[in-house]
Amino acid sequence: MVVIMKPGTKKEDIDILVRKFRDQGLDVGITNGVGCTILGLVGDTISLDIDKISMEPNVERVMRVQEPYKKANRKFHPEDSVVTVGKARIGGGSFSVIAGPCSVESEEQICAVAEDVKSSGAALLRGGAFKPRTSPYSFQGMGTPGLDLLMEAREKTGLPIVTEIMDPRMAELFEREVDVVQVGARNMQNFELLKEVGKMSKPILLKRGLSNTYEEWIMSAEYIMAAGNENVILCERGIRTFETFTRNTLDVSAIPAIKQMSHLPVIVDPSHAAGMYWMVEPLAMAAIAAGCDGLIIEVHNDPPHAKCDGQQSLTPKKFDELMKKVEALVPMMGKKLIR
Amino acid sequence: MVVIMKPGTKKEDIDILVRKFRDQGLDVGITNGVGCTILGLVGDTISLDIDKISMEPNVERVMRVQEPYKKANRKFHPEDSVVTVGKARIGGGSFSVIAGPCSVESEEQICAVAEDVKSSGAALLRGGAFKPRTSPYSFQGMGTPGLDLLMEAREKTGLPIVTEIMDPRMAELFEREVDVVQVGARNMQNFELLKEVGKMSKPILLKRGLSNTYEEWIMSAEYIMAAGNENVILCERGIRTFETFTRNTLDVSAIPAIKQMSHLPVIVDPSHAAGMYWMVEPLAMAAIAAGCDGLIIEVHNDPPHAKCDGQQSLTPKKFDELMKKVEALVPMMGKKLIR
Amino acid sequence: MVVIMKPGTKKEDIDILVRKFRDQGLDVGITNGVGCTILGLVGDTISLDIDKISMEPNVERVMRVQEPYKKANRKFHPEDSVVTVGKARIGGGSFSVIAGPCSVESEEQICAVAEDVKSSGAALLRGGAFKPRTSPYSFQGMGTPGLDLLMEAREKTGLPIVTEIMDPRMAELFEREVDVVQVGARNMQNFELLKEVGKMSKPILLKRGLSNTYEEWIMSAEYIMAAGNENVILCERGIRTFETFTRNTLDVSAIPAIKQMSHLPVIVDPSHAAGMYWMVEPLAMAAIAAGCDGLIIEVHNDPPHAKCDGQQSLTPKKFDELMKKVEALVPMMGKKLIR
Amino acid sequence: MVVIMKPGTKKEDIDILVRKFRDQGLDVGITNGVGCTILGLVGDTISLDIDKISMEPNVERVMRVQEPYKKANRKFHPEDSVVTVGKARIGGGSFSVIAGPCSVESEEQICAVAEDVKSSGAALLRGGAFKPRTSPYSFQGMGTPGLDLLMEAREKTGLPIVTEIMDPRMAELFEREVDVVQVGARNMQNFELLKEVGKMSKPILLKRGLSNTYEEWIMSAEYIMAAGNENVILCERGIRTFETFTRNTLDVSAIPAIKQMSHLPVIVDPSHAAGMYWMVEPLAMAAIAAGCDGLIIEVHNDPPHAKCDGQQSLTPKKFDELMKKVEALVPMMGKKLIR
Repeated sequence: MVVIMKPGTKKEDIDILVRKFRDQGLDVGITNGVGCTILGLVGDTISLDIDKISMEPNVERVMRVQEPYKKANRKFHPEDSVVTVGKARIGGGSFSVIAGPCSVESEEQICAVAEDVKSSGAALLRGGAFKPRTSPYSFQGMGTPGLDLLMEAREKTGLPIVTEIMDPRMAELFEREVDVVQVGARNMQNFELLKEVGKMSKPILLKRGLSNTYEEWIMSAEYIMAAGNENVILCERGIRTFETFTRNTLDVSAIPAIKQMSHLPVIVDPSHAAGMYWMVEPLAMAAIAAGCDGLIIEVHNDPPHAKCDGQQSLTPKKFDELMKKVEALVPMMGKKLIR
Repeated sequence: MVVIMKPGTKKEDIDILVRKFRDQGLDVGITNGVGCTILGLVGDTISLDIDKISMEPNVERVMRVQEPYKKANRKFHPEDSVVTVGKARIGGGSFSVIAGPCSVESEEQICAVAEDVKSSGAALLRGGAFKPRTSPYSFQGMGTPGLDLLMEAREKTGLPIVTEIMDPRMAELFEREVDVVQVGARNMQNFELLKEVGKMSKPILLKRGLSNTYEEWIMSAEYIMAAGNENVILCERGIRTFETFTRNTLDVSAIPAIKQMSHLPVIVDPSHAAGMYWMVEPLAMAAIAAGCDGLIIEVHNDPPHAKCDGQQSLTPKKFDELMKKVEALVPMMGKKLIR
Repeated sequence: MVVIMKPGTKKEDIDILVRKFRDQGLDVGITNGVGCTILGLVGDTISLDIDKISMEPNVERVMRVQEPYKKANRKFHPEDSVVTVGKARIGGGSFSVIAGPCSVESEEQICAVAEDVKSSGAALLRGGAFKPRTSPYSFQGMGTPGLDLLMEAREKTGLPIVTEIMDPRMAELFEREVDVVQVGARNMQNFELLKEVGKMSKPILLKRGLSNTYEEWIMSAEYIMAAGNENVILCERGIRTFETFTRNTLDVSAIPAIKQMSHLPVIVDPSHAAGMYWMVEPLAMAAIAAGCDGLIIEVHNDPPHAKCDGQQSLTPKKFDELMKKVEALVPMMGKKLIR
Repeated sequence: MVVIMKPGTKKEDIDILVRKFRDQGLDVGITNGVGCTILGLVGDTISLDIDKISMEPNVERVMRVQEPYKKANRKFHPEDSVVTVGKARIGGGSFSVIAGPCSVESEEQICAVAEDVKSSGAALLRGGAFKPRTSPYSFQGMGTPGLDLLMEAREKTGLPIVTEIMDPRMAELFEREVDVVQVGARNMQNFELLKEVGKMSKPILLKRGLSNTYEEWIMSAEYIMAAGNENVILCERGIRTFETFTRNTLDVSAIPAIKQMSHLPVIVDPSHAAGMYWMVEPLAMAAIAAGCDGLIIEVHNDPPHAKCDGQQSLTPKKFDELMKKVEALVPMMGKKLIR
């Protein structure tokens, strides 16, 4: 951490502050110049509160040098983490595709889609039972009966199931029934929920918030890991920008950036990023080429009658065409597609 | 709602769609031009799913004409709503100031600050017992004992208390002990929490999310109102932009915009918007001049040692100076300061 | 400037870099810790290229401590700068209002509006002769004949004229005929134009770019000042964010921020920020309350038939009502309205 | 275009407006509902001014249905446009790479880099002679002598040269000496410059502005095309968002979006988007996979001593490695690499 002192601070005041830092076990280096003193702090600075130091009366500015995260930090864990669910593997050179409808609507629907995406090469089945909707008047998901249908589809196809948790009171149920627990973009900083899923034994798929930085995203993973669950998959799904043509702006740079900052696997959701089915394929291809470890794709057997997100869902036929291209591109990027 | 048909759609296909809309009780007007047909739908279109219609095979684009909210809509409720808590009143020409520390830290701290802000003219006391923090390693608030201290400060000063709920499992406790229940910016679209506070009898202070539009914000209020609680105060606290000098960018336009769209009262949090104590006063003045119904200000008796947000907290002395200016400006804007 | 060395850099490599900085006349302080060395550079670091230093093979990161601007920097020029044009004064406690139509359309129009805004208290007349339009098919302004009409309106009313320059080839004409030369938001980083207006003797009104930071904005002022023209007025006119209800998002924090960073006067354009005439008044009030030194307001005698920006223009009557409120608020903020 | 009338507008007022539109040669359809009338306008609406119509006293809102651009519109020109420069071809299935240093620094430098990038497979040479820099104290480019060196490098290697124009007064010189004229991101809405390059016979490489929408970007291309020059290449180079880890956020969705909206070729500049050399490769791969028609890459023989943008420049060796991957991926996406 670097501390810039206000111009004209007296030597004795600087000495007091330096002693304070040294008493906390930190090494402190001092740079004196005309009208400006800079302190360099080295040691375990993660627990130092940058805001508190910046409130010291003689401090002009504080700048962090080290990352504020430990468990998710690649510096302390250089090899890629791999998340394994049934036969599926995400990370460390393995690439898996998660596919399925936005929301579970009926037994026929979820089972038919599950069979279809399995035969096209998906390794996991997605489907929402509890849906976060902007309007209280929109379909809110089937709830628990939807979970039961997902379990039925799992039994029929063998595909592990991925579904979103929205309420900490549901943790026990999800721990029992679900294979991968999704935390949605709007809940990325719902810290009570993060602490709860941190106590679970199931892998957590953590979506990036609409306008959260890479560092905030990793800090939310750190919440889950600090609570005991190190099986975290990060999922880029587009950020909010001024551009309104697309539903969100897919930030492909997040893939190499997160890979450098963290050892956690990164997958991409091109369906939510685009918001339009015809843009899913180019964004999926871009994500693979940028180095992601998996995809999560919305597939619906009858998009015009989907209860939500029909406009961004692929038909099983279009998904099958996409998977042929995924199969060709993944090995070219040095990864193995698990199906 | 306006539906643009794809160029070249056959007349019979248009007729099928038109019949479908009319069967739902809507009036449909048809504009035929060279290579382009436009349908205008009039009636109760709030429950129509814009995404679903846009998936119809012959539809090019759908545009909403009416707002997707009812209970919060000024069109159906032209007079200002007023939220009353003890002697405090917010909205409809009444202006109240909420003040207090970011987090409750000790009995001495919260009681001293409460006395100070009361004597300067605050009508409500804020203080966090449960704190949403970006890092799992930061102080997370005192929890329930913090709530007890807030109640003690209320008893001593008579000021109603405002504090943040982060977990739906806390609803019963908050219903019993708290006067105004705050939903923080990061939870603005935590829909399970919204539904829960919608069942409470206490007023809800709903902060705008970091990157949520006016419409999304009102839709979150609509969640609370649809669940039965119409006592909602909206709070603008700055949005996320590319500018990094300020912690957030205060969006003063939100005040006249929300006033036009909704009858709900709007207050402003200049402390979180600025992120720097010296900027609180000009932003507070700007907010009043733009027409807000109240302020929520962070005040700490010892900012350099505050457990959080010290850098944006006013000392009681600075808060007192600010209140003198507030007292002068509020009546000039045609409002009455309640103290 | 602070230079963080890569972990494990050899002592001799650090010594070479330190010597290099000392040879450039800088004081260098060294902080050695376990696995991390930090260099603090003090002296004239404005001309150091942060990107170049960060390319040194053993450097991990470089952070700037001092601002990269000199002439616009309040540190080196603590008193407010005041720009004087005829009787109008902007800055240093003086507040002036600039008003007029988006574009000059005819002799009758510009002269009528000029008389109106003068009698309501405007100190300068604005009007566009050359208009930056998103579409090549929109009205591009009257051009040079428009300038002549502005001069005529000046002669009739005595109001100095403010108009936008878009082309460096026009500098001579503007130097001769115009009182305040406006550089528009889209040209804030048109560096060839900045250099050209930097050679002029007339005050420059520099609008903030749609998505430019405070520092970039001041750097553009620095371009003009470095070329010899220190009469620069900064104008906040709203930034681009995700919110689409307003044309732009007025950033009122820019006012106190710029006042702290620079000695230059800051005015606000609520018309372009709002994009809707009914929002001009609350934003204008907010800007004054936040401490700005002036306003620039679009006024048109017949907004529905304005050739551009009619929807955000006030009628002379509405402008007169606004000015009454401006007259009341400006002295309350400790400033003097010049009319 | 769709016009929503204010609730309660009288029938005769609606009739007057309808007649007005019909007099302009438009077909008007009317939808009457309880409390709401919608007009649908069909015909040549490109020249209608949406702002002006929205100012009509009884109009509540106006929504555009048709795109405001003609010459760049894929609807009126379904086949891909191809830009040909010497042997290089961009668009319509042909893919070319432009490479070279940020700025021309010396004869040795530009000629060495030109030879290197040519032998690795670049089809055009880039290099800045006039540089837009945020600070007036930074290196501003060599100017005209830099252009001479570029011409020398062209003569030695046969590579056509791409360089940026910043000043309309330079148009004649660029027309004579340069092969592809670049308009930089900061000048995307410098309309005087657009009009000037629209008169040139050379292809124009038009970079997207930092915070400009797809539609604004295409409108700037339309300026150039409307002035007579239809040889326009669009270049995505990252947009400004809240994320600060990367210099800009590469918007890969721009590629399929622009391809749908326009027939113009789209290339990508991963160097400016990333701002860090190690991120250039994954972003370049992502851009190709998303369907772009070419790349523009910064290459420098000695990045640590580059006069600008060294931190984002590849060495010739790294560029050669990148080109091997480009050569493998381009045909997989169904395009032909021209070298």
